[in-house]
Amino acid sequence: MIEPSWVESANQETSDFPLNNLPHGVFSRRNAPGSGRRLGIAIGDAVLDIAALAKEQVIGAPAGAENALVEPAWNHFMACGPRAWQDFRARLRELLAADGPETDRAAVSRAMVPLADVDLHLPFVVAEYTDFYSGRHHATNVGTMFRGAENALPPSWLHMPIGYNGRASTVVVSGTPVHRPWGQLKPPGRDAPEFAPCRRFDFELEMGAVVGLPSTMGRPVSVAEAETMIFGYVLLNDWSARDIQTWEYRPLGPFQAKATATTISPWIVTPAALEPFRVSGPERDRELLPYLHEPGPMMFDIDLEVTLRPDGAAADTTLTQTNFRELYFSPAQQICHHSSSGCRMSAGDLIGSGTISGPNPENRGSFLELAWGGKEPVGLAEGGTRVFLEDGDRVSMTGRAQGKGFRVGFGSCNGTVLPAIKYPGLGN
Amino acid sequence: MIEPSWVESANQETSDFPLNNLPHGVFSRRNAPGSGRRLGIAIGDAVLDIAALAKEQVIGAPAGAENALVEPAWNHFMACGPRAWQDFRARLRELLAADGPETDRAAVSRAMVPLADVDLHLPFVVAEYTDFYSGRHHATNVGTMFRGAENALPPSWLHMPIGYNGRASTVVVSGTPVHRPWGQLKPPGRDAPEFAPCRRFDFELEMGAVVGLPSTMGRPVSVAEAETMIFGYVLLNDWSARDIQTWEYRPLGPFQAKATATTISPWIVTPAALEPFRVSGPERDRELLPYLHEPGPMMFDIDLEVTLRPDGAAADTTLTQTNFRELYFSPAQQICHHSSSGCRMSAGDLIGSGTISGPNPENRGSFLELAWGGKEPVGLAEGGTRVFLEDGDRVSMTGRAQGKGFRVGFGSCNGTVLPAIKYPGLGN
Repeated sequence: MIEPSWVESANQETSDFPLNNLPHGVFSRRNAPGSGRRLGIAIGDAVLDIAALAKEQVIGAPAGAENALVEPAWNHFMACGPRAWQDFRARLRELLAADGPETDRAAVSRAMVPLADVDLHLPFVVAEYTDFYSGRHHATNVGTMFRGAENALPPSWLHMPIGYNGRASTVVVSGTPVHRPWGQLKPPGRDAPEFAPCRRFDFELEMGAVVGLPSTMGRPVSVAEAETMIFGYVLLNDWSARDIQTWEYRPLGPFQAKATATTISPWIVTPAALEPFRVSGPERDRELLPYLHEPGPMMFDIDLEVTLRPDGAAADTTLTQTNFRELYFSPAQQICHHSSSGCRMSAGDLIGSGTISGPNPENRGSFLELAWGGKEPVGLAEGGTRVFLEDGDRVSMTGRAQGKGFRVGFGSCNGTVLPAIKYPGLGN
Repeated sequence: MIEPSWVESANQETSDFPLNNLPHGVFSRRNAPGSGRRLGIAIGDAVLDIAALAKEQVIGAPAGAENALVEPAWNHFMACGPRAWQDFRARLRELLAADGPETDRAAVSRAMVPLADVDLHLPFVVAEYTDFYSGRHHATNVGTMFRGAENALPPSWLHMPIGYNGRASTVVVSGTPVHRPWGQLKPPGRDAPEFAPCRRFDFELEMGAVVGLPSTMGRPVSVAEAETMIFGYVLLNDWSARDIQTWEYRPLGPFQAKATATTISPWIVTPAALEPFRVSGPERDRELLPYLHEPGPMMFDIDLEVTLRPDGAAADTTLTQTNFRELYFSPAQQICHHSSSGCRMSAGDLIGSGTISGPNPENRGSFLELAWGGKEPVGLAEGGTRVFLEDGDRVSMTGRAQGKGFRVGFGSCNGTVLPAIKYPGLGN
């Protein structure tokens, strides 16, 4: 049920940001140069300026972290841990609920900025970025294309969440355009590689878990502990250069193919907001080793959709619809496994889920799968087809947990592909 | 030739830290609790307290970075760029040279702390850690063991510096003990993996380049530009769990096998100090693509050695001797390739070279190679053998560029293997 707020726009059935949600972001006022980046909470069609509320002492910072609410990113607050997150959320609900005390409403109203008037930024400083591969349909599709149906899943796939370290320095917020990358490519039949713009540029539909509470080096965390460390979730587009990857990935995995950009949604949706949507993951084919056992359901029912709009087009084409719950390993299991070697997790680590494809062709989470390696072009709403992304294409991802008469939404995670740059020094 | 200093201990032929060197580190006074971490420069058997010199205005911070010399890590200073680095070094030489002006010698003397009285810390905050695989002998040895001599080098190996993103959060300074990691292992012949302490724990002899000057997302850098971005070099031990890696690495590369710890030497040796030792890399078998062309010699002649001392032993066993110049791709080429997709490089990025083996068995940079996958046990000085590391083993790496009557040294990069922890929650 929707939780009514005195902020009227938050009570709309179609709002991503009812009182139930209260996601964390970072914003700047578009027409106020120099006002800088500030922490914000989305409510209806507005963002609540947390630094302003903190300065007026309407909301308090966690004990021992007096500056945590006036910084330009949520990292410091995140590191304060689950108790601080709960207290903060409880206070926000008190301030915004229709049946809450009215004492501070004037101050809260003064701190509300229309979403239409702000630019949104990365909500946290990405400490490190790890990308997993825990979508079974995705791994099966890709494996079938490259190794045949018999050997589709790598031998360890059902036993552990396979992952690799990605590049944190190129994680960008929704709306940031992405240039088609250059790289080494070796087209089939050629003897030697060439250096050229990527010809098989792709999106990957993922979600990201944001680690809030850090762990200690040499001290692995259990699945249950890992879950308490998760500050929230974002949508994530893992832009992928398939032809660069094919040539570079043996034996150390993807590297430059995944380093151009990773786009995330501007709002971090908290576990507290998603709690009503908690579900179990898929059945296990093989029993997991004890360190990966889950104490209970650890997935969420979140509908995901990807649309494409070519440059100049008037209509979006829906490319895929799927659900977060398709993941075989939960983010908590991923973080548990990540720490199993003694690896320290930091406040601000971004944990990509892996591409989330569903069981059917219309649920596939990348062009590689949708067009089956280029063999089955995808038709667009206004005519034409695609096998991979073309310059000018805008990819938009949305996600929402759908309740009765309300939703908990993530906003948009979008980006437009720009042409490859003129490469410095090559005289091209 | 040694450059004489009025600091007598710096004029010893066997000192790692003559006036020619002036490496950057971070220290705290061992018997002065609360004095905190401070920037230091090694000279002879002392460390120069840079914050103290800055406070007395004996040495100036770079323009626009007034706090850069009173911070607990070199990152801020590094980001100021090569001109600032040169000015700083020139001033240090003026202060420390035997034939320099004597005006500030009293202040400099007051700022000198015996190396014996300090603890050394990570000299910089590791932004991200990337590990390359650019040692040809190493890649050939490993490839021969796993795929046979015919297919030893992966197809792209001679065309690009292959690398993967490692984990920055577990980079530690020399002297930090390392617990044998737990992980998923699948011994040959077994159906399913087990979760157990690693049985094939190994060192890898590498060097690390430290990126000082950052680059811009979407703007690749040339090899020449990349070289100007390098603040300096460290020794690096890429601790590796071979059995964990074997089971996990397909298709996304090493992950938990390399996440337990990476140890670096406490001193960053600058390109300026290494300039007299500049040499060309190996001959190329295949012409490189133009973006990887080098404008001149970009390697350095640095002798490297690894010794092992078992728990309780009185003598070191020399395991290997090799040279940095064995690398097929230079750090500048690695950084150029790293940026080729548009990836932004940050101040504090650590770029591992890859294991540096030489052409002969006595030049091999890991136990995997030295004992050829367990088949050829290595004899120890006091009897006994090793095929991989055992609990209590202390691995020490040293590196030095040897001049006539002086050396430019890195100090020690060492670490001791501790037994696996009692894994939380498993009741073991």
